[in-house]
Amino acid sequence: MSMQNPVFIPGPTNIPEALRKACDMPTIDHRSPLFGEILHPARAAVRRILKSDSAEIFIFPSTGTGGWETAISNTLSPGDKVLVARNGMFSHKWIDMCQRHGLDLTIVDVPWGEGLPADRFEEILTADSGHEIKVVLATHNETATGVKSDIAAVRAAIDAAGHPAMLFVDGVSSIGSMDFRFDEWGVDVAVTGSQKGFMLPAGLAIVGFSERAMAATPTAKLHRTFFDIRDMEKGYAASAYPYTPAVGLMNGLNEACKMLEAEGLENVFARHHLMAEGVRAAVRAWGLELCAGRPELYSDTVSAIRTPEGFNASDIVSHAMHGYGVAFGTGLGEVAGKVFRIGHLGSLTPTMALSGIATAEMCMKDLGIELDLGSGVAAAQDVYRSGKKTTVKEAA
Amino acid sequence: MSMQNPVFIPGPTNIPEALRKACDMPTIDHRSPLFGEILHPARAAVRRILKSDSAEIFIFPSTGTGGWETAISNTLSPGDKVLVARNGMFSHKWIDMCQRHGLDLTIVDVPWGEGLPADRFEEILTADSGHEIKVVLATHNETATGVKSDIAAVRAAIDAAGHPAMLFVDGVSSIGSMDFRFDEWGVDVAVTGSQKGFMLPAGLAIVGFSERAMAATPTAKLHRTFFDIRDMEKGYAASAYPYTPAVGLMNGLNEACKMLEAEGLENVFARHHLMAEGVRAAVRAWGLELCAGRPELYSDTVSAIRTPEGFNASDIVSHAMHGYGVAFGTGLGEVAGKVFRIGHLGSLTPTMALSGIATAEMCMKDLGIELDLGSGVAAAQDVYRSGKKTTVKEAA
Amino acid sequence: MSMQNPVFIPGPTNIPEALRKACDMPTIDHRSPLFGEILHPARAAVRRILKSDSAEIFIFPSTGTGGWETAISNTLSPGDKVLVARNGMFSHKWIDMCQRHGLDLTIVDVPWGEGLPADRFEEILTADSGHEIKVVLATHNETATGVKSDIAAVRAAIDAAGHPAMLFVDGVSSIGSMDFRFDEWGVDVAVTGSQKGFMLPAGLAIVGFSERAMAATPTAKLHRTFFDIRDMEKGYAASAYPYTPAVGLMNGLNEACKMLEAEGLENVFARHHLMAEGVRAAVRAWGLELCAGRPELYSDTVSAIRTPEGFNASDIVSHAMHGYGVAFGTGLGEVAGKVFRIGHLGSLTPTMALSGIATAEMCMKDLGIELDLGSGVAAAQDVYRSGKKTTVKEAA
Amino acid sequence: MSMQNPVFIPGPTNIPEALRKACDMPTIDHRSPLFGEILHPARAAVRRILKSDSAEIFIFPSTGTGGWETAISNTLSPGDKVLVARNGMFSHKWIDMCQRHGLDLTIVDVPWGEGLPADRFEEILTADSGHEIKVVLATHNETATGVKSDIAAVRAAIDAAGHPAMLFVDGVSSIGSMDFRFDEWGVDVAVTGSQKGFMLPAGLAIVGFSERAMAATPTAKLHRTFFDIRDMEKGYAASAYPYTPAVGLMNGLNEACKMLEAEGLENVFARHHLMAEGVRAAVRAWGLELCAGRPELYSDTVSAIRTPEGFNASDIVSHAMHGYGVAFGTGLGEVAGKVFRIGHLGSLTPTMALSGIATAEMCMKDLGIELDLGSGVAAAQDVYRSGKKTTVKEAA
Repeated sequence: MSMQNPVFIPGPTNIPEALRKACDMPTIDHRSPLFGEILHPARAAVRRILKSDSAEIFIFPSTGTGGWETAISNTLSPGDKVLVARNGMFSHKWIDMCQRHGLDLTIVDVPWGEGLPADRFEEILTADSGHEIKVVLATHNETATGVKSDIAAVRAAIDAAGHPAMLFVDGVSSIGSMDFRFDEWGVDVAVTGSQKGFMLPAGLAIVGFSERAMAATPTAKLHRTFFDIRDMEKGYAASAYPYTPAVGLMNGLNEACKMLEAEGLENVFARHHLMAEGVRAAVRAWGLELCAGRPELYSDTVSAIRTPEGFNASDIVSHAMHGYGVAFGTGLGEVAGKVFRIGHLGSLTPTMALSGIATAEMCMKDLGIELDLGSGVAAAQDVYRSGKKTTVKEAA
Repeated sequence: MSMQNPVFIPGPTNIPEALRKACDMPTIDHRSPLFGEILHPARAAVRRILKSDSAEIFIFPSTGTGGWETAISNTLSPGDKVLVARNGMFSHKWIDMCQRHGLDLTIVDVPWGEGLPADRFEEILTADSGHEIKVVLATHNETATGVKSDIAAVRAAIDAAGHPAMLFVDGVSSIGSMDFRFDEWGVDVAVTGSQKGFMLPAGLAIVGFSERAMAATPTAKLHRTFFDIRDMEKGYAASAYPYTPAVGLMNGLNEACKMLEAEGLENVFARHHLMAEGVRAAVRAWGLELCAGRPELYSDTVSAIRTPEGFNASDIVSHAMHGYGVAFGTGLGEVAGKVFRIGHLGSLTPTMALSGIATAEMCMKDLGIELDLGSGVAAAQDVYRSGKKTTVKEAA
Repeated sequence: MSMQNPVFIPGPTNIPEALRKACDMPTIDHRSPLFGEILHPARAAVRRILKSDSAEIFIFPSTGTGGWETAISNTLSPGDKVLVARNGMFSHKWIDMCQRHGLDLTIVDVPWGEGLPADRFEEILTADSGHEIKVVLATHNETATGVKSDIAAVRAAIDAAGHPAMLFVDGVSSIGSMDFRFDEWGVDVAVTGSQKGFMLPAGLAIVGFSERAMAATPTAKLHRTFFDIRDMEKGYAASAYPYTPAVGLMNGLNEACKMLEAEGLENVFARHHLMAEGVRAAVRAWGLELCAGRPELYSDTVSAIRTPEGFNASDIVSHAMHGYGVAFGTGLGEVAGKVFRIGHLGSLTPTMALSGIATAEMCMKDLGIELDLGSGVAAAQDVYRSGKKTTVKEAA
Repeated sequence: MSMQNPVFIPGPTNIPEALRKACDMPTIDHRSPLFGEILHPARAAVRRILKSDSAEIFIFPSTGTGGWETAISNTLSPGDKVLVARNGMFSHKWIDMCQRHGLDLTIVDVPWGEGLPADRFEEILTADSGHEIKVVLATHNETATGVKSDIAAVRAAIDAAGHPAMLFVDGVSSIGSMDFRFDEWGVDVAVTGSQKGFMLPAGLAIVGFSERAMAATPTAKLHRTFFDIRDMEKGYAASAYPYTPAVGLMNGLNEACKMLEAEGLENVFARHHLMAEGVRAAVRAWGLELCAGRPELYSDTVSAIRTPEGFNASDIVSHAMHGYGVAFGTGLGEVAGKVFRIGHLGSLTPTMALSGIATAEMCMKDLGIELDLGSGVAAAQDVYRSGKKTTVKEAA
């Protein structure tokens, strides 16, 4: 792998210059007022990026997985009922975590490549007349399959059922890249990490809690200490932290939010859509199909591409790395060997995206997949040429 | 605070150039073989620095606090008996974490400023004829009081009692700076972080598990998912990680170990001792006393300095920050307001140490403490002058 | 322009991570022995890269232009006769500099796009029976036209004429990227800069002097002080410098040479050839022509591409910058508006090169040049696919 | 030498974080409009820092020595008469350069440690009734002796003599650190570099030309090409450069000017004075003397300290480097072995300055000079304690 080629994994993303420099900080005293000058603006900016007026933002030196644990361990008790669908590796992993925590799960299995089944959720919630289900878990963007689900529909399902369940959303590979509306969608806990839409190295779990989620905290009985938001809350009130914060990353988070807001969130989303459209055009030109079943499921941050029957999709990833020094995403879980993934989130330009598409073409050709060299590139170029008429402000 | 002045907090430390550069990495694919080239050497090097032949090393994107949680949640079950002494803020915090996990603690309270009471441990363990105590928790270096305890003596106490309890050691502010002997002392779990002896930014919990501790894992019933070492183990075997690793920090950890080993661990320890001796000479010259009660308790990584009765020691820390842009450590918990702390761990030179001592002098003088300007500096200079005859190889 | 897209100007090149870090140094005392540890290895490494056993290497805080001035002002006197051909902007500029220095030039004008006329040189030198011509100036690689000349042939011409003239070679855009043989070709002065084959920021003039060139120095009467190699020589002997050196860049130069030698010079040249072949295949696929008239003139570091009659080639460069944030080279001098240039020197991968080719395609299409999107990319992919069978070791 | 200790050479200075990051730039196309966005603000900011409304600012990839050459070669012709005093190594070197250029110098030798003899200048200029003297060269701050001269007095001398000579000032170690008034003092050419008051790495010659100096350019007959300001002028008008600019350093220069102006020039000067007063107090406490003869000559950027008879001052510098990893300045020329120098310019805090003073004390004591350890530190602390009441805004 060349340090100079862009990466096309669905996170960690390519890190913009300005963010690398913001993270690369000399040590400051995290118990001094300097820390508050990093902490408070970062929390406020994340809140705005979630499109929330009142979410409590918590930032842990951890990862998205730690964010999941924060979400459930601060709000639930052993045996609590949880409704969740499994449509990919990351929903599967969150389910696994819940099970290890002794929660009582109702799992709706849907084919990998499908989105969240809001209608099934509505049926189940309606049937739960005793309102025993405490939480609905929803993965906004299934990074493994490149499937974006309709969180507004999930909220509508809960409401239609007249059910008081809280809504927890894994927005790890959507927040900061695709539209996310904490308040409007009635999200109770949103979870993300530093290494996706925020374009930073991994190392931060970033979570937002609604008032209802905060209110659930005192009675939640699941064990938690490192991930206890009450310690964080107390710390934040004193511009401090319950343990040593990852100051550089938080400084980077601040800067990342500035970049996103300077570009304008809607422009950021439009840019991600454009990048994704180019990749999808290439996939069509190659005669291949996306794992995501329908256009409304297409993710703007990652495309999982099905390879022909009998072909091991992971060979593409491995060949790209060894032959060209380029990183793509491998298939995970049920779709291992069946798909390879092109991440197109974070700070990406048409020029960078085309280099990934061109490299994928070479790899597939090298490995015997039939396609015309340049065909995917040409299709993507067509998209990016029209796209450039819109404002594509690039990250410095 | 000036970004150019050294910091004198007891961690995070001043970060050497080479380590800042090692951490500041472009994104690589953490699912590619490149990651193994960082992961495996880092684990092996940490093992050597622990002076162990066989400890299993786990590295979490977290902090030392997460390391504590890793230690107990992977080895113990609710209600398990734990023996521990409280002699400062960090032992207090670990105790608090154990209590939140529902462990059954026998706490020996000793005055802050004292070391671990090996003799009391021996009595208690001897009395525990049913061998119900599963673990003895020991804080090697109490960062809050600048007290180093004798872990070998704790081990001897356990052995003298003929007790099978495991020994878990918080080495957060000792490992990499002061002598630590995992194998020789029969340590079962050692805990540290990236931001102390390893001279890196905060963001990694680093733990070592003995065979016995590993063997305790399958039956341990405390909840854990993010901190479950079994997931790590499985991941490591495939040169992977159960979630997204903090690759840059791990690359930095590798480099940090190279620096420590290039200097020679014993030289590193000698250098820390020399730096500390200079600070202690200054304290004596000022007519002040250390929180640590006796020379054998003196920490080589941090000195907690008692200020005169009626004086708020925290004013020194605050004045140093605002008046001179220099960070010292404040007193915590029972000794809040009574001590201020000079951290002297990690990459420090006599020249840097003298600048901290000189600044502390100015602050104390400014705030009305009687002392002769230059007196502490002169005493430290005397130490450093003789010290320079030894090999003080400096971090690049 | 995006800071994340590669640049495709013929220097300064894309700077590899490792070199950016090597240049970004804290201040050291340039009068201390530390400086010698940077200076001497850098000079020795440059000598090896020139393929010379004995050239004296001088490194000035300047640029290639300063290197030209160093070459002539240290060896010639006002009125001295110089033989030179003009076949592009850079040979033109060196001629201009000689004229300003009061030298007496015999200029052979050849069409831009042609190489150096070794046969004409031989005639002129043969006719110069009095051996009044002191120096033949030769531009190894005309960066403006993408034309590589045959320096061995120029040397052969001088020898065939039995002429004692010295041979000065501008290797600014060849050294470190294309084969250069100081000793074998009987070069007397070679000139380059830091920002081309060495992949560093601009800021160093790097020159090599043969014994004969050194011997010409004492009697040379052209004014020089900043560029006087005698001061440098004296300085170097004491591991010092006549003024303040650009230490970080020199540290970077050292590191750059290490990278080139670790890859192996012949591999570096082969890689450059491969990258260039891909670009040239794209040009053919577009139905366009190179400025360079014949394959043996093709430069492996930069391609100057003729655009159709009536089209302003500079519009491509401007559109690429504003529309896609990508930098290509504009036409200079006689070929301004007639060519645009793709630089493909330094640290470049097939993936990066393809991104430039794809972007150039979009620009040309946007501006109304007829071509098939993807056609150039496909042609280059074909080259890079076969190319990858050879060792393409990439810069870290 | 430790990369972590501050340097105490009189330039290059310690480089603030923000400036290291500003210099460490990815490659941009220096022929694109992006370059103008760096070039023009940098020139405008330097003009303001010179306190000039109209000086033409030229920035060369070179050093202060190149700035000297720029000054004379663009304004003078062989045989032109120049008046200059020699009072240290740097005035000596400029004289040497003039002599090599064939200028006709009237040299007033004054003892090293003295300032420029304005009265002698007045006599000589008055006697030059034919106004043959074209230029008076003045070194504002003799870096070798730590002597600041009164440029206003030199201007007054020229005026008193009713003489039309131009005034060229070497402000290399004063501009950006000590008050410099281009317009008010009637300076015609001011010369500096990037590595002193601008706190950057070496690599830029920065010069300002008055209208008169500009007017002298067309008729000046000294050879120049690399340093020809006419090429620069033409380039700047097109937001370009006659050759490849050192873009990163120029970006750093921009940022440096922002830092200086954010702090406020008068605050910068006051801070330098404070730092210097602390060092001078230490010198007095050690019972030593400055090379500078009288307080009005004391430089605020560097102190040259005379060591006792029979003692080789350079041993201090060498011992500091090898024993403590700290860089001081050695004595140069006539005062070699008689003085050592402490540079205190650029981004320096009291804490940093005290570390240098403390280290110097240890070195002198180690080498047998009689002094009380801590005595110089105490004297400096007294200065810095009072000083902190003034605004000492520190460079980030």
